[in-house]
Amino acid sequence: MIKVGIVGGTGYTGVELLRILALHPDAKVTMITSRKEAGTPVADMYPSLRGHLDLPFSDTATADLTQCDVVFYATPHGVAMADAPKMVAAGVRIIDLAADFRLQDPAQFEQWYKLSHSCPDLLAEAAYGLPELNRAAIAKARIVANPGCYPTTMQLGFAPLLRHGLVDASHLIADCKSGVSGAGRKAELGTAFSEASDNFKAYGVTGHRHHPETVEKLQLLSKEPVGLLFTPHLVPMIRGMHSTLYARLKPEAMATDVQALFEDAYRDEPFVDVLPPGAHPDTRSTRASNMLRIAVHRPDGEAGDTVVLLVVQDNLVKGASGQAVQCMNLMFGLLETAGLRHVPVLP
Amino acid sequence: MIKVGIVGGTGYTGVELLRILALHPDAKVTMITSRKEAGTPVADMYPSLRGHLDLPFSDTATADLTQCDVVFYATPHGVAMADAPKMVAAGVRIIDLAADFRLQDPAQFEQWYKLSHSCPDLLAEAAYGLPELNRAAIAKARIVANPGCYPTTMQLGFAPLLRHGLVDASHLIADCKSGVSGAGRKAELGTAFSEASDNFKAYGVTGHRHHPETVEKLQLLSKEPVGLLFTPHLVPMIRGMHSTLYARLKPEAMATDVQALFEDAYRDEPFVDVLPPGAHPDTRSTRASNMLRIAVHRPDGEAGDTVVLLVVQDNLVKGASGQAVQCMNLMFGLLETAGLRHVPVLP
Amino acid sequence: MIKVGIVGGTGYTGVELLRILALHPDAKVTMITSRKEAGTPVADMYPSLRGHLDLPFSDTATADLTQCDVVFYATPHGVAMADAPKMVAAGVRIIDLAADFRLQDPAQFEQWYKLSHSCPDLLAEAAYGLPELNRAAIAKARIVANPGCYPTTMQLGFAPLLRHGLVDASHLIADCKSGVSGAGRKAELGTAFSEASDNFKAYGVTGHRHHPETVEKLQLLSKEPVGLLFTPHLVPMIRGMHSTLYARLKPEAMATDVQALFEDAYRDEPFVDVLPPGAHPDTRSTRASNMLRIAVHRPDGEAGDTVVLLVVQDNLVKGASGQAVQCMNLMFGLLETAGLRHVPVLP
Amino acid sequence: MIKVGIVGGTGYTGVELLRILALHPDAKVTMITSRKEAGTPVADMYPSLRGHLDLPFSDTATADLTQCDVVFYATPHGVAMADAPKMVAAGVRIIDLAADFRLQDPAQFEQWYKLSHSCPDLLAEAAYGLPELNRAAIAKARIVANPGCYPTTMQLGFAPLLRHGLVDASHLIADCKSGVSGAGRKAELGTAFSEASDNFKAYGVTGHRHHPETVEKLQLLSKEPVGLLFTPHLVPMIRGMHSTLYARLKPEAMATDVQALFEDAYRDEPFVDVLPPGAHPDTRSTRASNMLRIAVHRPDGEAGDTVVLLVVQDNLVKGASGQAVQCMNLMFGLLETAGLRHVPVLP
Repeated sequence: MIKVGIVGGTGYTGVELLRILALHPDAKVTMITSRKEAGTPVADMYPSLRGHLDLPFSDTATADLTQCDVVFYATPHGVAMADAPKMVAAGVRIIDLAADFRLQDPAQFEQWYKLSHSCPDLLAEAAYGLPELNRAAIAKARIVANPGCYPTTMQLGFAPLLRHGLVDASHLIADCKSGVSGAGRKAELGTAFSEASDNFKAYGVTGHRHHPETVEKLQLLSKEPVGLLFTPHLVPMIRGMHSTLYARLKPEAMATDVQALFEDAYRDEPFVDVLPPGAHPDTRSTRASNMLRIAVHRPDGEAGDTVVLLVVQDNLVKGASGQAVQCMNLMFGLLETAGLRHVPVLP
Repeated sequence: MIKVGIVGGTGYTGVELLRILALHPDAKVTMITSRKEAGTPVADMYPSLRGHLDLPFSDTATADLTQCDVVFYATPHGVAMADAPKMVAAGVRIIDLAADFRLQDPAQFEQWYKLSHSCPDLLAEAAYGLPELNRAAIAKARIVANPGCYPTTMQLGFAPLLRHGLVDASHLIADCKSGVSGAGRKAELGTAFSEASDNFKAYGVTGHRHHPETVEKLQLLSKEPVGLLFTPHLVPMIRGMHSTLYARLKPEAMATDVQALFEDAYRDEPFVDVLPPGAHPDTRSTRASNMLRIAVHRPDGEAGDTVVLLVVQDNLVKGASGQAVQCMNLMFGLLETAGLRHVPVLP
Repeated sequence: MIKVGIVGGTGYTGVELLRILALHPDAKVTMITSRKEAGTPVADMYPSLRGHLDLPFSDTATADLTQCDVVFYATPHGVAMADAPKMVAAGVRIIDLAADFRLQDPAQFEQWYKLSHSCPDLLAEAAYGLPELNRAAIAKARIVANPGCYPTTMQLGFAPLLRHGLVDASHLIADCKSGVSGAGRKAELGTAFSEASDNFKAYGVTGHRHHPETVEKLQLLSKEPVGLLFTPHLVPMIRGMHSTLYARLKPEAMATDVQALFEDAYRDEPFVDVLPPGAHPDTRSTRASNMLRIAVHRPDGEAGDTVVLLVVQDNLVKGASGQAVQCMNLMFGLLETAGLRHVPVLP
Repeated sequence: MIKVGIVGGTGYTGVELLRILALHPDAKVTMITSRKEAGTPVADMYPSLRGHLDLPFSDTATADLTQCDVVFYATPHGVAMADAPKMVAAGVRIIDLAADFRLQDPAQFEQWYKLSHSCPDLLAEAAYGLPELNRAAIAKARIVANPGCYPTTMQLGFAPLLRHGLVDASHLIADCKSGVSGAGRKAELGTAFSEASDNFKAYGVTGHRHHPETVEKLQLLSKEPVGLLFTPHLVPMIRGMHSTLYARLKPEAMATDVQALFEDAYRDEPFVDVLPPGAHPDTRSTRASNMLRIAVHRPDGEAGDTVVLLVVQDNLVKGASGQAVQCMNLMFGLLETAGLRHVPVLP
């Protein structure tokens, strides 16, 4: 039984890790830390866990996480990199749900997160935790950087097209829509019910941290320079993400069978589902599950050069905590789907 | 044209006053104050007001509100009573949307609001701003205490029954449900979208400030001691309030035609609508309007002794800012409905 | 492995059975019927089930359900009783999620459902499927009548009080609130998004089918005649039910420790959670799980005679399909919690 | 006082017309027809109109609409063109909220609406009712085709760019999101609360009727052939539309001050609000009002060639009934803003 520690278990990615791990056959949460809630039983804060988890929050300052086999950091940016050297030295694996190990370029990290990186050597060895694109590296990594929610959808969507050089890589457009839980568990006016309900808006059009992350990773798949226009929007729903992706086929690629391309790319993936032609996936078809679904469209048929991809996932599962557990499974040689076979909750 | 000042114009009752007053034929907002937003054009904070209001927030500390004919306090509890003596001395009328002048008993005020009352003499002369029950006093008042949202529904619901001594006043039950905007414009976890959406809960069962207010006012209508059990609940909707009220007819009142009683009571009221028998009012039938609607039920017919009242309103209009404007109209001898003829927004 | 058949698998209780049974360790769905969708793969209608269920709908007219060990009827009222004699004769157990076997009094059934009962003898032997109140009978039953969603909350709430004769049984009040999925998967105007969202209303105040069911079952627990006032309301949320129950303690029962009474009553129940004093349960604390939670309040302390119970559940799980699986587990001697250990999905 | 008739007053655009016209200073609804609801007082169907409208539905078959000065058709496609010859002959103006007179090409109309056009001569003279682009023609028209909701946002967004030939007209992308009321007042499964709430999806990617309408009208503004990729999505909100528009500046237009271009284009428009640079408009900033707001972005600054426009409106007002009243005002020489000065309802 793998001993799991969670740092910052009070946020949404934290409680989602707890929901998933509570029923994981091969792992058990043995320690959860919180600065503010030390001593409080976790189930007092989250009554949904009553009967499933009998553990109090430990004090972040004094908890000895080196007793764990793996520690998930469901924390603000900067926490994981501060702990990493000590953890790695103690032989503990790290899965960071924040951004500390996502951007391989420390300058980019510093620009976007306003922090200088404290362990660039560990950054260099960290694996980017998107199993479908980086499985081998994750399996042997000591540190895994769990991808952002938006980047997961954009990469899995654009990857087959870029890998084969089929589209104009310099003018990708990602029009993405996220449920409000993506903003985290915070007392914030902008995500208050009376502000965000019965409303829709774009945000961060002038710059979003998931943009450099996505471009860096897409560039690894493309021989040509990647240019990405990314427009995130806020949807009045709790969970769910829908990315509508636009790419233009090169003249020589107009005859591509894009549907077949995607089916081939993801045929053996347990958590990527390429839908039949013509589908319009609901975000709820992934709710509370680790599935990501993709529908492939070419609205004007062969007469038009634009491919439209509809990609949906649960932002807290495949977009965060589920993907993190998927990485853990790989890192410990478990069945990749262990603990992750939830049927989506519908309606 | 009546010159209107608003103190604390950044909250929901403030912006709702602005929405209503923007089109009021006889009143004009000439000053709005805010501690934090001094200098900011109001329409920058509330783009919905672009083109309707060309006024910046004034600094609360320096604004001279005595230039106004009437000042609305859409502020936290305690602000209005601090200003009141100066305003009254200057001949400015006050309408307080907070609780400073609601409870006639200063001891009750102190117990529930943890503030001692700074001007008990003004409290004594203040009128309770529920026009349907207190129209004459409001018309000549210098200070009006605008009722709480829940108390408005409970009083207008129970009043006809209590006035005629038809029910057991000692065991009234009010099971009330409010939209989330009732909690105000705040960065609070409990009212965050991801917490309050797709969810329902009771709160304050062990004590809510609207309880003593309602009991004090209902007692004025009843010869017998009033006992009220009040259970507020939070509904995942922005605006709207639905109070389900239960009262037991006395044995000698079993033959009462309760429907007729209510129709008679409110026949001439422009903002109270007694629905036909059998109705189940939607809260949305009052959305963004000053209407309050009541349906009268007696589920077991003459065989049962319990009357069930379904009372709906928009908590921000009849439950707050609309009622305040209704009071203003009375205080200045205007048509009571001036500026308040909005058709509910449906769907 | 128990072979499970589902009749009427296209509705919400049907798909919820499929969600639960897909991961049940001891049961497997081997046949699903639908009049309209015969031949369609179930996962085509419900993409959430892709990869979890590889089965088409069978034609209701021709499917041989006698091959199953147990058949769930997730159908309109009247279907199960038409099939029951044949099934019972073939040794197949029946769990009816509709009302055919809920009311022991055929006259009541006829009055409320406008159908005469076609097999009163089987009705007489059917067990009412509320395990916490009727476990032994369910375990040996051939036919189980799965309770209505509202009745589950009302019975588990009032039961401890009535059993001990502590309250005035003749004036119980149940002010109940349900998510919209309780209305089923239907193209209906009243439950359309644009009608039901951002809105709240009561319905069925003049009569609801769950009223006679609840009264009949509560009467079994009470020596005194039961009188129940039941007011259902529609909440703009998908899943979830919150029943606010009011009962008045008899003068001789004023000293009862009601909290302790409830804790004792449900101490060993895996799916009933009595919360600590002062709690206000969220419906979401039970979302997508089989838990029902109860908070016990006495708002005026010993000075008041009214007990207020806050009861929450997921209407599609403990209020329908989860409870049905719980009954199945009992009927087949399985672990009562088998397949039902879902952690509630929060947020 | 202009006498207004409404055909098909039971749908959402119908009730929205009633909401607006109830307070219009120069027009009065004198007749409303409905096939199914003849004789029913309108306020019985829409309690929101109680006290605002004292009129029953007239029978469509027998009502004499030629008594009206203008008739709005808030009907399914095909109704207005059947009535039009008779109405026009009687001197009655027509404003059709359906599609009968939108597409000038009858072949296109037939292809998309599966109806042959019954009065192509009247079609030829009909004015397209988008005042900001076609004011003069509307003012003198006998028949006005009120634009679709999506086309309104796409046209007002792309118009300034196309008129000046600044962008690649052949590869416009419109990623549009609509509230559910856009689907109309219908008992449909796809727009049921339990299906559409807490969910997000695209639809109609393979073809939507607003596509040919938009292309035909955009073509009038562009010298080059227009190619438009249009992806509509369904947002779990009642009202509101957000169109995110993408267009690529031609190399020679890279230095354009796009913000200034838009401010100049709409400076005198009462219902088009160009927001300051950097804005992310909420749909709710237009709720229940006739305003359309546009924010202009160029995410990569001068380094990038793509312009991103964020366009918001209330789909039932500027996207339907409000725009229709705006047209009526023009047709009758009234103040264009008469009856349309509603302040958006926020929160």
